[in-house]
Amino acid sequence: MLQLKVRLQAIETGKPIVVLNEEDIKELGCHLGDRIFISSSGKTVTAIVDASTSFVNAGEIALFEDVKESLDVKDGDVVSVNPAGRPKSIEFIKKKLDGLKLSDHELRTIVQDIVDNNLSDIELSSFVSAVYVNGYDMDEVVAMTNAMVETGDHVDFGHGSVDKHCIGGVAGNRTTMLLVPIMAAAGLRCPKTSSRAITSPAGTADTMEVLAGVEFTIDELRGILAKVNSFMVWGGSVNLAPADDKIIRAEYPLSLDPEGQVLASVMAKKKSVSASFLVIDIPVGKSAKINDMTRANDLARKFIELGARLEIKTECLITDGNSPVGRGIGPSLEARDVLLALDGKGPLDLVNKSLDLAGALFELSGRVQAGDGRRIAEGILSSGKAKKKMLDIIEAQGGNPKVTPSDIAIGEYTYEIQSDLKGNVKFMDNKLIARVARAAGAPKDKEAGIYLHTKVGDVVKKGDTLFTIYAKTESKLTDAINLADKSKPVTVGGLILGKVT
Amino acid sequence: MLQLKVRLQAIETGKPIVVLNEEDIKELGCHLGDRIFISSSGKTVTAIVDASTSFVNAGEIALFEDVKESLDVKDGDVVSVNPAGRPKSIEFIKKKLDGLKLSDHELRTIVQDIVDNNLSDIELSSFVSAVYVNGYDMDEVVAMTNAMVETGDHVDFGHGSVDKHCIGGVAGNRTTMLLVPIMAAAGLRCPKTSSRAITSPAGTADTMEVLAGVEFTIDELRGILAKVNSFMVWGGSVNLAPADDKIIRAEYPLSLDPEGQVLASVMAKKKSVSASFLVIDIPVGKSAKINDMTRANDLARKFIELGARLEIKTECLITDGNSPVGRGIGPSLEARDVLLALDGKGPLDLVNKSLDLAGALFELSGRVQAGDGRRIAEGILSSGKAKKKMLDIIEAQGGNPKVTPSDIAIGEYTYEIQSDLKGNVKFMDNKLIARVARAAGAPKDKEAGIYLHTKVGDVVKKGDTLFTIYAKTESKLTDAINLADKSKPVTVGGLILGKVT
Repeated sequence: MLQLKVRLQAIETGKPIVVLNEEDIKELGCHLGDRIFISSSGKTVTAIVDASTSFVNAGEIALFEDVKESLDVKDGDVVSVNPAGRPKSIEFIKKKLDGLKLSDHELRTIVQDIVDNNLSDIELSSFVSAVYVNGYDMDEVVAMTNAMVETGDHVDFGHGSVDKHCIGGVAGNRTTMLLVPIMAAAGLRCPKTSSRAITSPAGTADTMEVLAGVEFTIDELRGILAKVNSFMVWGGSVNLAPADDKIIRAEYPLSLDPEGQVLASVMAKKKSVSASFLVIDIPVGKSAKINDMTRANDLARKFIELGARLEIKTECLITDGNSPVGRGIGPSLEARDVLLALDGKGPLDLVNKSLDLAGALFELSGRVQAGDGRRIAEGILSSGKAKKKMLDIIEAQGGNPKVTPSDIAIGEYTYEIQSDLKGNVKFMDNKLIARVARAAGAPKDKEAGIYLHTKVGDVVKKGDTLFTIYAKTESKLTDAINLADKSKPVTVGGLILGKVT
Repeated sequence: MLQLKVRLQAIETGKPIVVLNEEDIKELGCHLGDRIFISSSGKTVTAIVDASTSFVNAGEIALFEDVKESLDVKDGDVVSVNPAGRPKSIEFIKKKLDGLKLSDHELRTIVQDIVDNNLSDIELSSFVSAVYVNGYDMDEVVAMTNAMVETGDHVDFGHGSVDKHCIGGVAGNRTTMLLVPIMAAAGLRCPKTSSRAITSPAGTADTMEVLAGVEFTIDELRGILAKVNSFMVWGGSVNLAPADDKIIRAEYPLSLDPEGQVLASVMAKKKSVSASFLVIDIPVGKSAKINDMTRANDLARKFIELGARLEIKTECLITDGNSPVGRGIGPSLEARDVLLALDGKGPLDLVNKSLDLAGALFELSGRVQAGDGRRIAEGILSSGKAKKKMLDIIEAQGGNPKVTPSDIAIGEYTYEIQSDLKGNVKFMDNKLIARVARAAGAPKDKEAGIYLHTKVGDVVKKGDTLFTIYAKTESKLTDAINLADKSKPVTVGGLILGKVT
């Protein structure tokens, strides 16, 4: 046991780490990466010895805000320090590295430690790597899903709610914002949480935020739901399956995206809001996340099996993900598309895809007969009922219920990218379009992004505008133009696939 | 590009990390885990965005000493920040996670980034996990060894040096400190670097440090070698294969110890001092690192093949690792055993094993004929030449050349653990013995540890002393006694292996 003087570092690290002098680490019989108990006036926390440094003198311990908060100490206080053991999770992570199947209890223990920030980056990364290499079987996916749900808030919004999810990877594609008002207008309960952009120019939450608030407490969400039978909010503002974000942070540096973890992540979010019927959009295409039908079908089957085991009736639609859906890319440009679509003037592909998804969800929920879904969805949209419901949702979430497409501010710095030859638009690369829109400032600058003047198949002349870039500042516009010139996200002609010499 | 004001955190983390406000991370289009360039008056460093926190205001960047040093900035300075790409290593680490073989160039790139502290804990841990799961083939082990050598200092002490290594896991076992003076006394060059304890009560460097200095510069080592034809120092004090310690830090939390990495680690140290002839001690036993002969033989074959590819003539001796070797456990107690052995009064098992290893190394080096090695080693020891050489080495390394066994201070707080029945000593658990010795304060307290009054096979009566615990303080003595009482490291009798009911 050592008595050490607290030296406070006034930042949060999000990790339970402390820094000691090398001599004190030896005196404790510890090493970097070991856990210690830190006690002060009756309180004890566990922290990980993350670094030893001559900047912390022997007899001192450097604490960051996270540990300071839980321990309620101030600079100069003296704390007791004792070696602590490893959490059980470590053993289970090693088991997964060894290729063995984890039990419900073992996965639950790991997820609890992740949620409680008990694991170091090294330990968390080992878990993520183990899952990437050795995968989960379906039992493990179910256990992981339940563990992620149980370690967060979960809200019973009542049996019979409908929900929708998209695997992502397609620019634009703001179908949720048409589907939700259509379902809710038909009287179906639709509590929808969405994500913000990670590597895309906009998530549904970013786009919805152009029109209304997206961050609410669970009680506020109950109120909104009672009023308008639905909501469209940012999932991150409520504590649903909080393990997910922490796991994603460790997956991000190596772009690890193990299928089992994706399945659990998606379904945990749905289970946390007690969804009963779920339609999943799986876009397939050259520049989408999923590139071939075999993988798409395989993933779809797994989602359906997982849904069955979680008592969420699930259907998957494999969709054309070769190019962006809609014309606007970036929060405000997408929000404008959505409002136009609710007025019957939106991009045809966006409207059509949304109606197909809504139709499928109507049929899945048993609300309408097989074959009638799409027609009924179309009726709700063209009657103006979906628009009215959308304005009600916007009002319930604190937005302007009289908003019109022309109210939406779009970036004032613009530049038109033109075709340098005559021909058919052959290909639009989702990833490159996304990158140019992000260079222009999206999603941070809501008014930044891209507007597509052409779609795949269109005939263009030399000098016709392919797309317009919108930005909030001149320097970001320049960045986006340079990237567009270099990367050429839209291909005109391009029937020559390769040259053999 | 952002201009941010430096907020200095006066500690070193050993990692290239910075902390930003969430808004600024979004503005940069970055995420946690991404790299940024930080520039100030012509200097640029790359750092990893490790955390976002409200404790760092928008417009500020929190820098730790490591980054501050390389950038030469002070609190309040303004620096330019730009997003940076991922290092190439990331792609190669992912390739290893995917089970693919890495090229020399790819492994070299990873090792260079490890040595330069360019990888985050998450990234480094993915690499270690990938190697644990997918392993190296022999080409990769060779490439890894060379990469570890080339990214550190390596010293050509001349062709023909002899060296020795032990896989570890056996308490006591201080054979190096007998073998080196024997070899050097016979005129063989023996530049020996050793490790300090990680989980054991003493490494050879800790024990040697009782008698002499063990930290020198390369130039000083050349001087010592010129004088006494050998040295016994701490490998960590010179920059030999520095990647090794950084990799071990990431392996430690999950006790990962992938064989390929062990092979590369051992041989990189040997190659760094240009060893030509190497004997490796592979102890096999119930409580040792290696538990069965099959694994020991397999490991031995790999060491020999790797040695051949690195032009180090290598021989492995598989040894009895069932119980501790020698009687003293802990730096001072072991150092006393060694001095006694040089006087012809040391523990028989320690002396015998050292002579066998020295004999094998004599024969391997070609200095003596096959079958003559052990006899010649014994002659050098009994003639007093080895003792004289040892005292010369101690003097050359700054110790007292007149030291005698009784000069060595042993912990003043002692306690005798006695047998509670009459019988044969059946088993001594290396790991438990080590744990009790560590609880008593070893290796930090040099005079702490255990003295074994009995060895396996001895007949003891009830009340006979099995071992004595030595400690520097009463509280550590109590800790060690409690652990010894609970864990019972020495088994008397114990012919009943199990009870079936």
